[in-house]
Amino acid sequence: MVQRITIRASQKKGDIVELTANQSHYLRRVLRLGVGDRFIAQDGLGAQWFATLSEDPTVAHVVEVVAAAQQVLPTAPLRLIAALPKGNSFDQVVRQATELGVSHIYPVISDRTLLKPKGNRLERWRRISQEASEQSERITVPEIFSPMPVNMCLQQANWEGLRYLCAARQNSPHLLAKLQDDLTSENLLDVTLMVGPEGGWTADEITVAIQQEYKTVTLGSVILRSVTASITALSLVAAARELLI
Amino acid sequence: MVQRITIRASQKKGDIVELTANQSHYLRRVLRLGVGDRFIAQDGLGAQWFATLSEDPTVAHVVEVVAAAQQVLPTAPLRLIAALPKGNSFDQVVRQATELGVSHIYPVISDRTLLKPKGNRLERWRRISQEASEQSERITVPEIFSPMPVNMCLQQANWEGLRYLCAARQNSPHLLAKLQDDLTSENLLDVTLMVGPEGGWTADEITVAIQQEYKTVTLGSVILRSVTASITALSLVAAARELLI
Repeated sequence: MVQRITIRASQKKGDIVELTANQSHYLRRVLRLGVGDRFIAQDGLGAQWFATLSEDPTVAHVVEVVAAAQQVLPTAPLRLIAALPKGNSFDQVVRQATELGVSHIYPVISDRTLLKPKGNRLERWRRISQEASEQSERITVPEIFSPMPVNMCLQQANWEGLRYLCAARQNSPHLLAKLQDDLTSENLLDVTLMVGPEGGWTADEITVAIQQEYKTVTLGSVILRSVTASITALSLVAAARELLI
Repeated sequence: MVQRITIRASQKKGDIVELTANQSHYLRRVLRLGVGDRFIAQDGLGAQWFATLSEDPTVAHVVEVVAAAQQVLPTAPLRLIAALPKGNSFDQVVRQATELGVSHIYPVISDRTLLKPKGNRLERWRRISQEASEQSERITVPEIFSPMPVNMCLQQANWEGLRYLCAARQNSPHLLAKLQDDLTSENLLDVTLMVGPEGGWTADEITVAIQQEYKTVTLGSVILRSVTASITALSLVAAARELLI
């Protein structure tokens, strides 16, 4: 398997990729690639190139563009609006959601979020997401937004496509049943999921979401931590979309 | 929500539950329950009782049996045979699999498992699984077995029900598509999943599994770490079984 790194678009200058010290260290010391060895440089926006290491540790040579046929097909948006859990467990949401093909992650603060997030963990999440994208050979890196109150996120959001609010133990149809009904054509693969905090969304938050045309669904009779709920919901959407492609 | 602890069957003596020092500490100091406060003691095998704390920190009084109607219905077996990943990430498999309703976990060693497991982590996994069962209000705690080579596990296994081997990027039907075909009656809810190591099962391991009537399935075109693959596969089975119940 060809190893890959994600570069900024500005690092590619014609047939040259300017490597940062970290990237050079990763390729040479961690992956143990030598001069002339091939790797893939991707810009995280869909473009990727085969490149080889040179004698100069700061420079790699672009060999060829990775053809579209060699790429996993980009899919329609799969957005996750997820309430921030306690502690560092959102790291795990970011990593697993990236593997499962999420395109946009909106960490949100619910009225039920007792602990406000400490510091700005956005850079950390972006790094985790970039690493997970490389491991999963994704050609795009998910976009991760700054944490904001859930109502603010919903007011800004005017996306097309299917919108589901996952609620625990509500008397609602199962997400998988709704997907089987709703995902009927390739024009309808655009999906947004809302996954709540441990205590569930508040009645006010649910009202706002319903106004924004979110359908309330359940993830089943089991009681899931919010981390596992996000991953379960994304797994079901990813699988249901695959069956259509 | 009534808090719950898991006890050994031998701790219940008539109308008394003998609490360990840890359990007493958890109930009094961590959950801050006082004398007379109710909690649920469950034996992890399906029986559970309301109990109250007494003046004596080593003793709780059984108040009543938790009626079957208050319990989540026990479901058919959902077994996970999962190759041990590197590091401690199997902890996460145990926790999330427990939330999703797994009944038996078989950590196995594949020929592709480069790092043999260090020490005996079985007690640790059982503790994680017990905690996750309590959080998810499960009335049964999954059974976790000692790590063994995958071929040994398959030779011992002569279970009924549906058996799936999850393989990465194979030209196989999607697990969800197979479940939609195979899960047609409540008599067929018994499911066993095999989820491989990062490099996938070896050809020999796949041959043995096919002899044992495992059907090869894919989890889609995405590339998942083995931790996420286990959780995705269990999510699909849990959802597909819910739709039948």
